Amino acid sequence: MDDRLIVQKYGGTSVGNTGKIMNVAKRVVSYRNKGYDIVVVVSALGDTTDELLALASKITKTPSEREIDMLISTGEQVSVALLAMAVHKLGKEAISFTGSQVGIITDSSHTKARIIDVNTKKIQEELAKGKVVIVAGFQGTNMDREITTLGRGGSDMTAVALAKVLNASLCEIYTDVEGVYTADPRIVKDAKKLDRISYEEMLELASLGAQVLQARSVEVASKFNIPIHVRSSFSEKEGTFITKEVKAMEDVLVSGITLNKDEAKVTVRDVPDKPGIAAHIFGAIAANDINIDMIIQNVSRTGCTDVSFTVMAGDLPKTMKLMKKVSEEIGAGGIIFDKDIAKVSVVGIGMRSHSGVASTMFSALASKKINISMISTSEIKISCIVRRNKGEEAVRVLHKEFNFGGKK
Amino acid sequence: MDDRLIVQKYGGTSVGNTGKIMNVAKRVVSYRNKGYDIVVVVSALGDTTDELLALASKITKTPSEREIDMLISTGEQVSVALLAMAVHKLGKEAISFTGSQVGIITDSSHTKARIIDVNTKKIQEELAKGKVVIVAGFQGTNMDREITTLGRGGSDMTAVALAKVLNASLCEIYTDVEGVYTADPRIVKDAKKLDRISYEEMLELASLGAQVLQARSVEVASKFNIPIHVRSSFSEKEGTFITKEVKAMEDVLVSGITLNKDEAKVTVRDVPDKPGIAAHIFGAIAANDINIDMIIQNVSRTGCTDVSFTVMAGDLPKTMKLMKKVSEEIGAGGIIFDKDIAKVSVVGIGMRSHSGVASTMFSALASKKINISMISTSEIKISCIVRRNKGEEAVRVLHKEFNFGGKK
Repeated sequence: MDDRLIVQKYGGTSVGNTGKIMNVAKRVVSYRNKGYDIVVVVSALGDTTDELLALASKITKTPSEREIDMLISTGEQVSVALLAMAVHKLGKEAISFTGSQVGIITDSSHTKARIIDVNTKKIQEELAKGKVVIVAGFQGTNMDREITTLGRGGSDMTAVALAKVLNASLCEIYTDVEGVYTADPRIVKDAKKLDRISYEEMLELASLGAQVLQARSVEVASKFNIPIHVRSSFSEKEGTFITKEVKAMEDVLVSGITLNKDEAKVTVRDVPDKPGIAAHIFGAIAANDINIDMIIQNVSRTGCTDVSFTVMAGDLPKTMKLMKKVSEEIGAGGIIFDKDIAKVSVVGIGMRSHSGVASTMFSALASKKINISMISTSEIKISCIVRRNKGEEAVRVLHKEFNFGGKK
Repeated sequence: MDDRLIVQKYGGTSVGNTGKIMNVAKRVVSYRNKGYDIVVVVSALGDTTDELLALASKITKTPSEREIDMLISTGEQVSVALLAMAVHKLGKEAISFTGSQVGIITDSSHTKARIIDVNTKKIQEELAKGKVVIVAGFQGTNMDREITTLGRGGSDMTAVALAKVLNASLCEIYTDVEGVYTADPRIVKDAKKLDRISYEEMLELASLGAQVLQARSVEVASKFNIPIHVRSSFSEKEGTFITKEVKAMEDVLVSGITLNKDEAKVTVRDVPDKPGIAAHIFGAIAANDINIDMIIQNVSRTGCTDVSFTVMAGDLPKTMKLMKKVSEEIGAGGIIFDKDIAKVSVVGIGMRSHSGVASTMFSALASKKINISMISTSEIKISCIVRRNKGEEAVRVLHKEFNFGGKK
């Protein structure tokens, strides 16, 4: 590991205008002055990506994904050039690169590409010359030099991948919040910033809707044991360190509580209870690239059963159309859906060694007369589907119940 | 020559918004439907380049030219992606490329690079698949894959270079005016569109301030005999064809009259009249990358003389600083400058075979009591420096005198 090398990633809100870019440059230079080698990954300025997508949607509702990548990858290119100029202005050497120039090689899945290789030669050369190396986040190229992008939150992935191949001592993720919180501070006033959290917990939190860090990046950081520090670009305070599990972490029963209102529930009714039916339903879903979250199928006594699952709300129309067809094929009784749901989850590696978290959760919800319609669990997570209008209340009661507020 | 291949270039005003981009796509598709292979070169949307430069200037007054190129090259990348989507929307196949992807190789002079090679392989492959190929204008890469830009009007150069290497039958330059005019229609109400003009004349007109086409592109088109058609993207009318000289062109004495108000005059006074002095003055200027336009040095009888020259107004501060130093070195009497000038020029290959154009020009100006302070001539051009506030009147009287208005 290279103790003098740090990868810093700055999100869109951190580089929202030229004043903020100057502030980022100051921070970068302050690290450089301490003797660190710095590789900076930058997102597009503020809402640039959305603005570019809006332009495209004025032209066509079904743009080619290749051309979308050509279009939106310009956002990060603008950022890196401006940040390099800002570092120059402060008297330090810096050089910017696009994903293509630096050799971030991906597969060819436009708009959601995966990094398959990173060439470090150019970066190493420029670091050796004493330069701050500034890399456009969120983008790469495939083997044919077609421009690709890595999907929402893709700049996190760029940063983690660079930290890995460069053997960096730390990957700092700068954002507009001070770290990872026990719950969304907009919902729970006394939510607390976590000083430290394990990769596994962060992965669950990210997957469950905490937007501070892209889930896939956490997976990769975990796999290669790259320490991540999530912190605010508007403050000098330390944020949250994401590292491998240490013994002390187990003493904390629950690390965080999340709320996700982006899912919808689909139920296939009166499904004949015979082998192969579930495979038929979920095979069709997978073949259509729809991501399923929770699945519930009760064992039936009547020969028929209901199968329920949740999908991203955006995938609901596609899912309904598909399930109508499947329902006829398998002789089910019909399809119903429910968009009016919220998923509330508690996450913590302490659950592994402590029982009773589930019952505490259910009791707390019951005490507020919050009805649970689906439950799913993993080793370090319990999720419940509740009515959407009860979602925030559920988060607050659980936050209090698990004693984050400091009083019960 | 490939009779079925046309290169079309659309300037920034032609792709100023998504509606205009759709119109460009319609025109491209109409040509495609006639069976032509089409390579399209696009500039950045409207004022994008200036807006990006304004962002940079908020950060630093002295940005690195490498980073400027990184920044402003995004403008054309946005255009090509949007235009490809628009062509798709109309049901035709199209693919966009950056200058880097398509293999437009330049030297390393950032912000004013020159094209040294163009790789046609990728374009040929996509044309062979029946696709409209859309290339980002104004940009390329050097041998190290650093992004470069070609200077103002550089998209014209991209189009002409592609027309050359692809052996296209025609290079169409779409802009917001209907062609090349005998004078600026904003100054001369009855200015006439020229149907046809020679490369040499267009080169002089472009160099003298007609903004419709970049001078360097005309040089290249002339060298390789590539026919250019300058026309409006907002009309179906034919514009102006720029071709090699044909006999009939010589019957037209003067093809156009231009006005340039972007120059300033510098005079070095009481210069000792001895060998090597002019070389000293203009050597210093060249070494500082300042472009000189007109030079006047009268033979002196007293042993001292005044040397006057014109530079771009923007170069005046730099020039004055430099000349103060040179003036001391050579023992001259001092430096004066005059920003209050305009250059009015008449251009026409007919001048070659007809005498009297110069005296007609001087008489016409004298008839309006317009004083001439400097004169310079080429084989097909005569330029006069007059007071700035007389510039437009000078253009009008010359336009009338050379009978463009149809009545004298």
